[in-house]
Amino acid sequence: MPHRPPAQMALGSFAYAFGYHPAAWLQPGVPHDAATSLAHWVELARIAERGKMDFIFIADSPAVAPGPNESIARWTNSMNRPEPLTLLAAMAAQTTHIGLAATLSTSFYEPYNVARLFGMLDHVSHGRASWNVVTSDHQATSYNFGLDGLEPHALRYEKAREFFDIVCGLWDSYDDDAFICDPGSGYYFHPDRLHPLDHKGKHYSVRGPLNLARPPQGRPVIAQAGGSEAGKEFAAETAEVVFSIGSSIEESRAFYADLKGRMAKFGRAPDQLKVMPGIPVYVGRTEEEADEKLARLGASLNPAAGLSALQLFMTGVDFSGLDLDQPVPASRIDSNSNASKAIFGVAEQLLRQEGMTLRQMISRWAAQGSHTLFKGSPKQVVDQMEEWFSTGAADGFMVMHPVMPHDLTDFVELVVPELQRRGLYREDYSGTMLRDHLGLARPASRYAAPPARDEVA
Amino acid sequence: MPHRPPAQMALGSFAYAFGYHPAAWLQPGVPHDAATSLAHWVELARIAERGKMDFIFIADSPAVAPGPNESIARWTNSMNRPEPLTLLAAMAAQTTHIGLAATLSTSFYEPYNVARLFGMLDHVSHGRASWNVVTSDHQATSYNFGLDGLEPHALRYEKAREFFDIVCGLWDSYDDDAFICDPGSGYYFHPDRLHPLDHKGKHYSVRGPLNLARPPQGRPVIAQAGGSEAGKEFAAETAEVVFSIGSSIEESRAFYADLKGRMAKFGRAPDQLKVMPGIPVYVGRTEEEADEKLARLGASLNPAAGLSALQLFMTGVDFSGLDLDQPVPASRIDSNSNASKAIFGVAEQLLRQEGMTLRQMISRWAAQGSHTLFKGSPKQVVDQMEEWFSTGAADGFMVMHPVMPHDLTDFVELVVPELQRRGLYREDYSGTMLRDHLGLARPASRYAAPPARDEVA
Repeated sequence: MPHRPPAQMALGSFAYAFGYHPAAWLQPGVPHDAATSLAHWVELARIAERGKMDFIFIADSPAVAPGPNESIARWTNSMNRPEPLTLLAAMAAQTTHIGLAATLSTSFYEPYNVARLFGMLDHVSHGRASWNVVTSDHQATSYNFGLDGLEPHALRYEKAREFFDIVCGLWDSYDDDAFICDPGSGYYFHPDRLHPLDHKGKHYSVRGPLNLARPPQGRPVIAQAGGSEAGKEFAAETAEVVFSIGSSIEESRAFYADLKGRMAKFGRAPDQLKVMPGIPVYVGRTEEEADEKLARLGASLNPAAGLSALQLFMTGVDFSGLDLDQPVPASRIDSNSNASKAIFGVAEQLLRQEGMTLRQMISRWAAQGSHTLFKGSPKQVVDQMEEWFSTGAADGFMVMHPVMPHDLTDFVELVVPELQRRGLYREDYSGTMLRDHLGLARPASRYAAPPARDEVA
Repeated sequence: MPHRPPAQMALGSFAYAFGYHPAAWLQPGVPHDAATSLAHWVELARIAERGKMDFIFIADSPAVAPGPNESIARWTNSMNRPEPLTLLAAMAAQTTHIGLAATLSTSFYEPYNVARLFGMLDHVSHGRASWNVVTSDHQATSYNFGLDGLEPHALRYEKAREFFDIVCGLWDSYDDDAFICDPGSGYYFHPDRLHPLDHKGKHYSVRGPLNLARPPQGRPVIAQAGGSEAGKEFAAETAEVVFSIGSSIEESRAFYADLKGRMAKFGRAPDQLKVMPGIPVYVGRTEEEADEKLARLGASLNPAAGLSALQLFMTGVDFSGLDLDQPVPASRIDSNSNASKAIFGVAEQLLRQEGMTLRQMISRWAAQGSHTLFKGSPKQVVDQMEEWFSTGAADGFMVMHPVMPHDLTDFVELVVPELQRRGLYREDYSGTMLRDHLGLARPASRYAAPPARDEVA
């Protein structure tokens, strides 16, 4: 079956408070309280909305990065981060179209509370919520929740699958037309249109029903990001958006084909899941301007801050005591863990490149992490995006902006118009809900009667 | 020690989506989707803000009322209710001064998540958050969280006490001046100003630190509502606002003196806890207008809806099969449970009043529940409020509005000006944080050095 891409791509803004680049917070004009400043986040959302982007996404984990204070004090992204549900709800009140997506871990929340939080976010935003379902993969997180470590990977996914079913069932507690508000009978809602869940499963017991009307989208858009075998099966069955690493176009094509190929056995059409690799975009009016932007950020990166950032992600490598201007010795590289290898393949490649100094490596890792770099003039960046989009590597992109809000603005003002000119992106929103933007069907309630024969024909 | 009331009273709006009266949703002009409509809640918050009220409060419980659908379908308040943290965050984005308070149960959330949710609400609202700490008292709630029932009352409070300490400790994870953002050293925050909690207690183990800057108020304002012995001790030690029933002025004076008298042993000044009875206010331009308002609501109450509401609260009394126009037989009354007696004393008195028919009882219970009725012209209502305030029955009031938004508007336009005329209420806000409104001190971090001798003297 030849690849048939959707007519237009999807675009999410992968929004870190300061920006994706570890030197973002050191740039002039970046607010130091960005993580907790509603004004800052509203500005980001409105810029993305001006660019007609599908959604803004806030990654989350309920823990700080592990490590001694001396080391983590130089790292921004996980140390002071907004609680995403309250933040997105506040952003919803000051925007009209942009989708609002956040991570919430199935390992550290109760399904009833998750159903309420995301269900209400969908209500206050009039149908713009998206839940990125994760199981969490850092041991340290568990220590904040009375546990001595994470449960085994397979068990986490087994529980996540059950958790997900419960949350979806709770969202269906009331039929869409339940609230009849009939003065004659005194019925606020129709008694036949409320459904207790009565879930008694292997890992959870939740009676329900939810005390909340069905969300405007039926259910918030379901996103996932897992790359493991269990993660891909879970995504193929349930996800509508998948965030991927995109370390190369070849790897992305393989991931795309793999994931879409798993959907048929769950009775799902391939266009009901959007594969969206994360791409760090360094765009300038010219190629030279983009190069200068990248170089300037690299030069302003405090080496200690950069090294601590790298160390936090490549936990299997001990960088201590090394000379910044020498290559990393092979002996250190061999100590790399399997987990680091899988997740930080690009960084590991960099490590192995002979002759690259630790300082150069930090700089390059800071610019792109494990992702493919998208850099250049608007034409060059869009050429690259179009190649990925038209050859089965992506249905759209999670755009990672080096510095906020400047590089989100540059993306919206330089890249989006070129995408629109080529017909690759919408000129305007055609609806108000996130499902409208993404072309995703509104799920029927699990309690809905199957459509009559006439309606199907 | 003679009672010395604060110079001015505190006023909270106890906001039900439709209003306090069970017939509220049947009134013309009340939006049927009030519970989930952000526009409706923002309107309420803005009216309260126009009246310079201290805060708007959203009661919460993570469950629907128990009972067969036929019965609960006529009851509005707990059946479709907003998730309060996301709603208040959205309201924060469209208001500037009004405090934002909500209930969250210590029995069904994780301390780390609660610290993040209320901490971030305090950030997005620039210091207007308040957490009403409850342990939950409905068995049915536990069934939504994998439990077969609530834990014993004393154990719930013991756990709540530990839970509360953890949340407060997490809020202190970063010192107020932790984020130095120093380009020279590369320190985003000062390494000495982050404090892991390392809590290992009887019921919880939470390592911390929180991944969030200290809330603008140091900690959100702590509210409580428990009336039990354990509840009063907990409140005397930790609460800054206490919601009480206020079934009579005498009962309220006794409760007030009891609670304030317990504070000294915890080293707390009496003015750092505001006792605020809930009062249903029926105000008109004249006494006649107020009487008409009350009568009109009573007459429009669907008897089946009223009876189902009453039955949901007086679970110890079986009202089935009774004639609405006859008194309730004594045999039914005797089956009243201890819990109902304690909580619904007023309703029980009504039951016992000879000659009062079930219909009359429903009507009166609907109007005031277990609370004292505040009814009449602005002068009459304020006379009543002033008596309570000036004789040690209240530091302020949780105003319960029969129908939203109309009766909140009437309160702000008729009652508040009369309170202001007498000097009993502020003419305008003097600060922007909820602690400013209530005259509450900003708590020092538990890690703060004690003030130097000179500063104390």
